[in-house]
Amino acid sequence: MSLIVAALGGNAIIKEGQQGTFAQQFRNTFECMGYIAHLIKAGHQVVLTHGNGPQVGFIMIQVEAAVGKVPTAPLHVDVAQSQGSMGYMIAQSLTNQLQVHGIDTSVAAVMTQVLVNRDDPAMKHPTKPVGAFYTRERVVELERSGHAVVEDSGRGWRRVVPSPRPIRIIEVDIIKDLVQAGTIVIACGGGGIPVAEDNGALKGVDAVIDKDLASSLLAAEIKADVIVFLTTVERVALNYNTPQQVELERLSLDEARKYLSEGQFPPGSMGPKIEAAVEFVENGGDRAVVCRPESVVEALEGRAGTMIE
Amino acid sequence: MSLIVAALGGNAIIKEGQQGTFAQQFRNTFECMGYIAHLIKAGHQVVLTHGNGPQVGFIMIQVEAAVGKVPTAPLHVDVAQSQGSMGYMIAQSLTNQLQVHGIDTSVAAVMTQVLVNRDDPAMKHPTKPVGAFYTRERVVELERSGHAVVEDSGRGWRRVVPSPRPIRIIEVDIIKDLVQAGTIVIACGGGGIPVAEDNGALKGVDAVIDKDLASSLLAAEIKADVIVFLTTVERVALNYNTPQQVELERLSLDEARKYLSEGQFPPGSMGPKIEAAVEFVENGGDRAVVCRPESVVEALEGRAGTMIE
Repeated sequence: MSLIVAALGGNAIIKEGQQGTFAQQFRNTFECMGYIAHLIKAGHQVVLTHGNGPQVGFIMIQVEAAVGKVPTAPLHVDVAQSQGSMGYMIAQSLTNQLQVHGIDTSVAAVMTQVLVNRDDPAMKHPTKPVGAFYTRERVVELERSGHAVVEDSGRGWRRVVPSPRPIRIIEVDIIKDLVQAGTIVIACGGGGIPVAEDNGALKGVDAVIDKDLASSLLAAEIKADVIVFLTTVERVALNYNTPQQVELERLSLDEARKYLSEGQFPPGSMGPKIEAAVEFVENGGDRAVVCRPESVVEALEGRAGTMIE
Repeated sequence: MSLIVAALGGNAIIKEGQQGTFAQQFRNTFECMGYIAHLIKAGHQVVLTHGNGPQVGFIMIQVEAAVGKVPTAPLHVDVAQSQGSMGYMIAQSLTNQLQVHGIDTSVAAVMTQVLVNRDDPAMKHPTKPVGAFYTRERVVELERSGHAVVEDSGRGWRRVVPSPRPIRIIEVDIIKDLVQAGTIVIACGGGGIPVAEDNGALKGVDAVIDKDLASSLLAAEIKADVIVFLTTVERVALNYNTPQQVELERLSLDEARKYLSEGQFPPGSMGPKIEAAVEFVENGGDRAVVCRPESVVEALEGRAGTMIE
């Protein structure tokens, strides 16, 4: 039996081409939790993390649509909202799958704050586009109130926010206690709610944290054996989407670092996964796995996916 | 040392006359958590619950403002969002107050589902107005899609939703484990996310649960010694807001039941608190207390507030 941190990609919850209605999200999550139930049935202990890209985007668009009608939430509150609703959806779906599989284990979604550093260089260079596309007038207002805005791929103007590195999981001891008690924990949703320390006090920060890096930090802090990145591709590939594409069954740390530095893995998709995998193994983790949700049990046995060790 | 469930009223977070900006909400919550820190310093173990009236209303207005732009969330997801963001805000504020007071205790906000019965008569009679005021055209659309809408006190049309009785706290064992480990738990936010069982599977329900009744159920299930309702009045009163007003220091169960049946306590405010207090004491609880947040330590010693036992 090993302790596994499984990081769910956004596509596990909203599939390619879907609008992302809540019926779809609940259906996809239930399906994906079936694979997690197999993991648990196979004797593994699991901590789940997940992305929140489209969901926090929806919330930001809703917030924007009601400016002037109700108080406008800051981004860290939007992240908390998405963490709450997705934690609920995942916990409910997994509980239902465990019931189907006759497994009597409790599931807890814990609100998670993740410490970042205000002096992180990323805080001064917002790069991650989030939320709504804005009108020209609103862009002026946003810039006046200190928000950074960019033109995003010819589609319109969007806010960009910083994506600083995660330093510490505030609720890590609670997560450890629950794991100890045999509970399946859902934590660090959306990479966690970014907070900084001001004179020892926690304070929300308008940023987003990469969920793969936060998951890797969590996995190291709770001394997980394995971290699994669940994604849409079966294996990590070199020369991805070219005639020279090569799928990899195994990657050593040195190879992973080399390919990362060569820019083999695109930022915002496979890049942060490989980076997070390298960090986890460097920090004493046994191995990292990248695979599709449906092959997670096989991948842990080395019969599917890509293993980094 | 006793185990106390403290139920925060909405006014602890958005004060009378305030707009409810997030700066105000964080400031008020921090202030209120100072009183909770005193409780903890006095040696009590605390589980916090809280309302979400204005906050879920804001979210519903935002959802409504972005209909057609992004997928529309059902009410149980709105409740989960408010539970997430308020759990975060309360956990962060309490953590900061504990740090100020030199108390080294962890704080966890746990997403909480609360079981209701689809056959509850309340499910057929939606009574609780929530969220936005609608235009006449949108009312027709809402009614067509099965939502109940009423004219609310001459201010416009609003959705009304059912408020069924809470039956069981789904995450109760997790809350008990955390309390056992010495953690301060924030649970049942907004009365909990209402779910029903369909063939053994949990499914979200478009309803809201009274937070006082959910808190009383939680307090009974975790065998708390005391439940405290933190509100804006110093004491429960008879003939409230009349020249004959009498403040009560103590109420026996029999008196409480009698005054309830006489309609002394208005629904939606003191009524559910007294009803929940009576249920808690009937279910084996030691006593229930109603008081202002700032006098909670004194009220537990019988020197402030109203005690029901």
